Amino acid sequence: MDKERPIIVRYGEIGVKSPVVRKRFEKKLISNIKVLIDCKININQGRIFLFPENFEEALKSLKKIFGIVSYSPTLKTKTDHDTIKLAVQSYIKELVEKGEFDPEKTFAVKCRRVGEHKFSSREMAGFCGAAVIETTHAPVDLSNPDFTLYIEVRDDDTYIFHKKIKGAGGLPIGTQGRMISLVSGGIDSPVATYLMMKRGVDITIVNFNNHPFTSGSNEKIVKIYHKLKEYASGSDFRLLQVDYGEFLKKCTEEAPPRMTCVLCKSGMYQIAEKIAKQEKALAIIDGSSVGQVASQTLPNILATRYSTSMPVLSPLIGLDKLEISEIAEKIGTFQYSILPDSGCEAAPKHPETNAVLEKVLEVQEEIEMDSEVEKVLSTLHKVDLTL
Amino acid sequence: MDKERPIIVRYGEIGVKSPVVRKRFEKKLISNIKVLIDCKININQGRIFLFPENFEEALKSLKKIFGIVSYSPTLKTKTDHDTIKLAVQSYIKELVEKGEFDPEKTFAVKCRRVGEHKFSSREMAGFCGAAVIETTHAPVDLSNPDFTLYIEVRDDDTYIFHKKIKGAGGLPIGTQGRMISLVSGGIDSPVATYLMMKRGVDITIVNFNNHPFTSGSNEKIVKIYHKLKEYASGSDFRLLQVDYGEFLKKCTEEAPPRMTCVLCKSGMYQIAEKIAKQEKALAIIDGSSVGQVASQTLPNILATRYSTSMPVLSPLIGLDKLEISEIAEKIGTFQYSILPDSGCEAAPKHPETNAVLEKVLEVQEEIEMDSEVEKVLSTLHKVDLTL
Repeated sequence: MDKERPIIVRYGEIGVKSPVVRKRFEKKLISNIKVLIDCKININQGRIFLFPENFEEALKSLKKIFGIVSYSPTLKTKTDHDTIKLAVQSYIKELVEKGEFDPEKTFAVKCRRVGEHKFSSREMAGFCGAAVIETTHAPVDLSNPDFTLYIEVRDDDTYIFHKKIKGAGGLPIGTQGRMISLVSGGIDSPVATYLMMKRGVDITIVNFNNHPFTSGSNEKIVKIYHKLKEYASGSDFRLLQVDYGEFLKKCTEEAPPRMTCVLCKSGMYQIAEKIAKQEKALAIIDGSSVGQVASQTLPNILATRYSTSMPVLSPLIGLDKLEISEIAEKIGTFQYSILPDSGCEAAPKHPETNAVLEKVLEVQEEIEMDSEVEKVLSTLHKVDLTL
Repeated sequence: MDKERPIIVRYGEIGVKSPVVRKRFEKKLISNIKVLIDCKININQGRIFLFPENFEEALKSLKKIFGIVSYSPTLKTKTDHDTIKLAVQSYIKELVEKGEFDPEKTFAVKCRRVGEHKFSSREMAGFCGAAVIETTHAPVDLSNPDFTLYIEVRDDDTYIFHKKIKGAGGLPIGTQGRMISLVSGGIDSPVATYLMMKRGVDITIVNFNNHPFTSGSNEKIVKIYHKLKEYASGSDFRLLQVDYGEFLKKCTEEAPPRMTCVLCKSGMYQIAEKIAKQEKALAIIDGSSVGQVASQTLPNILATRYSTSMPVLSPLIGLDKLEISEIAEKIGTFQYSILPDSGCEAAPKHPETNAVLEKVLEVQEEIEMDSEVEKVLSTLHKVDLTL
């Protein structure tokens, strides 16, 4: 009886799509789960039933798969009063032993039923409640219980559980196409990348190596890549890099010093757009947040994006630094983002905060931006991930 | 002694800006507060001290002013041991009477000191702790207290408080320039607007009235406007509208039916860009979230934004519907967004989800988009806000 301990997986937004889209999303969600977790899977009436080889590992891994709203480890039994009673009592005894159920505190049983049965949900809840009392003598409180036992009856099968573990939310990765994400070693861009992965997007990270204006070490970016990859089960999660130092050198030498940061950002978008075509990506992601640093003013955002026709999506644009840092800590990238680095030595003392579009376009022409973009593109390469 | 009950206001991100920017932000924050709250204000060493006419009203209003991290109602007294002792005891007695301090539970005193004094912070904390014990006999627990009393000594003044109320965060509205926000009667766009207001942006809402394809009633949009305006103290918060029905009619009649939603969205951006020039706005805000509805696919986002050179900022692009709805409830727009309406009857049964840019540009040429945009612009008007 207690041989079968499936995990019930609930998915949310997928449920509201059209039948065709829903089917495609469900299929992708299941295949994403299978890449990460060694298991058998059934799908039935809007629920996924997971039979993992390693139960504890599976519980941990599910936390990192987008598209899942919540999940519950269960005890599966036959829909038969005597069998259910035995199962409920063995389930509760185990919880008492583990200290997860305190018979001194109040409890309630909630029952949900799918299919035709000779009993109502309320009757089954009462029946299971009596079984718990017989074992534990715990007091019942239906309106505000300290502990709730859930009974889910689905045709001939019944599932017993008491935990609903919150999933990562979002949509299955791989259902929304690919985007290029501009990722530096800072706190923000990994969070921006995570949020778009969560919305189902495949990612190609493009990192701009500013050597000799920074250390040139790939340690941070590789660590951040591996951390984010944990959430990319079922997706071809890529990391590309270009050498950007020569271009920055040209900016510092041939353009007004105030303009370096504006030209740097504008160049990134233009290069990302070209890489996007190769990668079959349809948008660019960055970590911009209005007003957070001097360069993220409205005039600068306008001027730096003007030379790019591809949409630039900035999921952090409306968030505070504190909120962004909290997400970074939660997803595990914060620890790598705060590793010390030299910062960018190409940045002027007084960067432009009020860029004038016409002036930016003029300077881009002077430094022959188009040919610079091509030069940078020719340095495109993969990064050694074994660091 | 207890005549003076200032509220200490703490502001966060402003603190990290350069001295010039910080001063400008502080000034704007103070003037935003003064518009909403009848009060005297002092500013000193990174704290604002507020002396309101109506204490309870002020506490409520502060919750809605961006740029504030937290605030505490205090009791102000002189920095003198005897006076502080009396003040602490009267403060604690009042809390006991109100049921906010339970002498059966543990407490601690934390002291912070700015200026030169003959005592250390730790000594003052101990002194005040003894005063509390003398009055209440409550037990002390320094590591994990149920209640914490804060003593902030600033030169000759000392402030006593026990609450740190969370503020709205963000940056003072009016410090980041103006944007156009496309707001419909739905759940998402008011939240997108709120998040950008929170980042310090002045807003001009532009609403597209789809009559006769919708009811044409302005009730929802006016209610949403007034709710959002509560957060706009110190900002010229505007609402404009254009008549969009004639344009939609042309789309349904002269373009492929699948394309209506794509043309509608592309038209909105193009019109918003023109209005932005009049309004001296530098970006467009919308409520897009990848994959939430059929029209918000990557190909559609790319195709609809292509004809606009102004940045389109979508602060919800990385959020789930559930997360967006939670913010809507918190800020109070949800109740208006869910008021029943007819929906848009111009939307086809099978809207395009995989728009091809070239095809969209071709159709825009066929329906003479540029002249349509001008026609819609000529209907630009203010909305009766007394609804």
